[in-house]
Amino acid sequence: MLQNIRVVLVGTTHPGNIGGAARAMKNMGLSRLVLVDPRIFPSLDADARASGATDILEGAQVVATLEEALVGCRLVLGTSARDRSLPWPMLDPRASGEKVIEQAGDGAEVALVFGREHAGLTNEELQRCHFHVHIPSDPAFSSLNLAAAVQVLSYEVRVAWLAAAEQGEASRPASAHSAELATMDEMEGFYTHLEATLVAIGFLDPEKPRHLMARLRRLYGRSEVERSELSILRGVLTETQKAARGEPYKRKDQ
Amino acid sequence: MLQNIRVVLVGTTHPGNIGGAARAMKNMGLSRLVLVDPRIFPSLDADARASGATDILEGAQVVATLEEALVGCRLVLGTSARDRSLPWPMLDPRASGEKVIEQAGDGAEVALVFGREHAGLTNEELQRCHFHVHIPSDPAFSSLNLAAAVQVLSYEVRVAWLAAAEQGEASRPASAHSAELATMDEMEGFYTHLEATLVAIGFLDPEKPRHLMARLRRLYGRSEVERSELSILRGVLTETQKAARGEPYKRKDQ
Repeated sequence: MLQNIRVVLVGTTHPGNIGGAARAMKNMGLSRLVLVDPRIFPSLDADARASGATDILEGAQVVATLEEALVGCRLVLGTSARDRSLPWPMLDPRASGEKVIEQAGDGAEVALVFGREHAGLTNEELQRCHFHVHIPSDPAFSSLNLAAAVQVLSYEVRVAWLAAAEQGEASRPASAHSAELATMDEMEGFYTHLEATLVAIGFLDPEKPRHLMARLRRLYGRSEVERSELSILRGVLTETQKAARGEPYKRKDQ
Repeated sequence: MLQNIRVVLVGTTHPGNIGGAARAMKNMGLSRLVLVDPRIFPSLDADARASGATDILEGAQVVATLEEALVGCRLVLGTSARDRSLPWPMLDPRASGEKVIEQAGDGAEVALVFGREHAGLTNEELQRCHFHVHIPSDPAFSSLNLAAAVQVLSYEVRVAWLAAAEQGEASRPASAHSAELATMDEMEGFYTHLEATLVAIGFLDPEKPRHLMARLRRLYGRSEVERSELSILRGVLTETQKAARGEPYKRKDQ
């Protein structure tokens, strides 16, 4: 199930950190690396720090946006150093490892997202995550090296994986949702649709959006929306848009 | 209590790793670094990777031998990648963090010992540790970067420390041994005395020592010997040596 887990590094500045992250991943049995708009890659610095994990670098997928990196994912965890203006569901690294293994064990695609060395993830990027993960560090010196952060979370994933393997598949209760959850890209399509609809009905002012979409993302993000539920929501939006355009209301049975 | 914990790096080859280790320590609230015979130190590479943790590098103690690094310690944990010919009490990183905090909370000096980048700790060095710690890694690619290993163990120490702080001092049961345990240097004095005595009585052949001292170290190491018990053991050895020299037996009450 570890192959269902991807590590996503966003906007990495120092290629050495990409190499260090690759080594940390491989030590913990993870293999899928996705790089969003890295500043320098490939790089000899990355190869040097990878120290035997160059296969992970060679297999790394390089994409332009976080959205592309998350295609197909049902669970996305983003590391966050700071308290944000908009509180978000938080997990500590231990609970993150357990959550990741629970979902990956159900066949879901899972992403662990790490931000830029100095600036972390933007608020917009953090809002694409279902959960934020904070590695408990000394508040007086809280910013971990990127590869060190990858090491800690990959380690917790491995610990949870070993514990699950020890318990055995038989005794592990299947998640209530199993393989029916909507993927990240399906959710993104929904958010786009939702936002357009809210603008159409005059509920969302594009000039003064406040935190409306973020709050809605947080709500749906933690709800583990099923694919069948998403169809319903999309249906509602489509009908709402028609209404906003002044199209006549038609009962389905007419 | 975190100030009772020292991180000991033995024979580090790459100064960058010393810097990375210092940063990982400071992130987790640890501050005491001891370097045993580092190849290059101080170094600009170390400063660069420390990235704000240069105070830890400046305060680092540089010594020639592991024995010096462990003076005053009552609990010593050594990282070990490999299975050894002589099995030793093992802890996983989580249990290590708990053990370290339990002892440090009782006022004991504790050391976390990390070996050379490629060769790890020697068997002799490992035998000076009460417990060996193995970070669970993929057997196919098991060797962590030194700073990454320091990160994982320091992280587990912090997690245990936060948990202990949450429980509060009041509800934490005092360790049975409290401040009465023998220190590492006292134990080393005992082992030297023991070995000389075993040679004197002809039980230990210096030409064919086998694993005898290692086995004895393992036994006493995991026993958490109290200072008062050590006095008794030393007394026994002194008397045994006298006997070996052919000195007449004298009952104490004579």
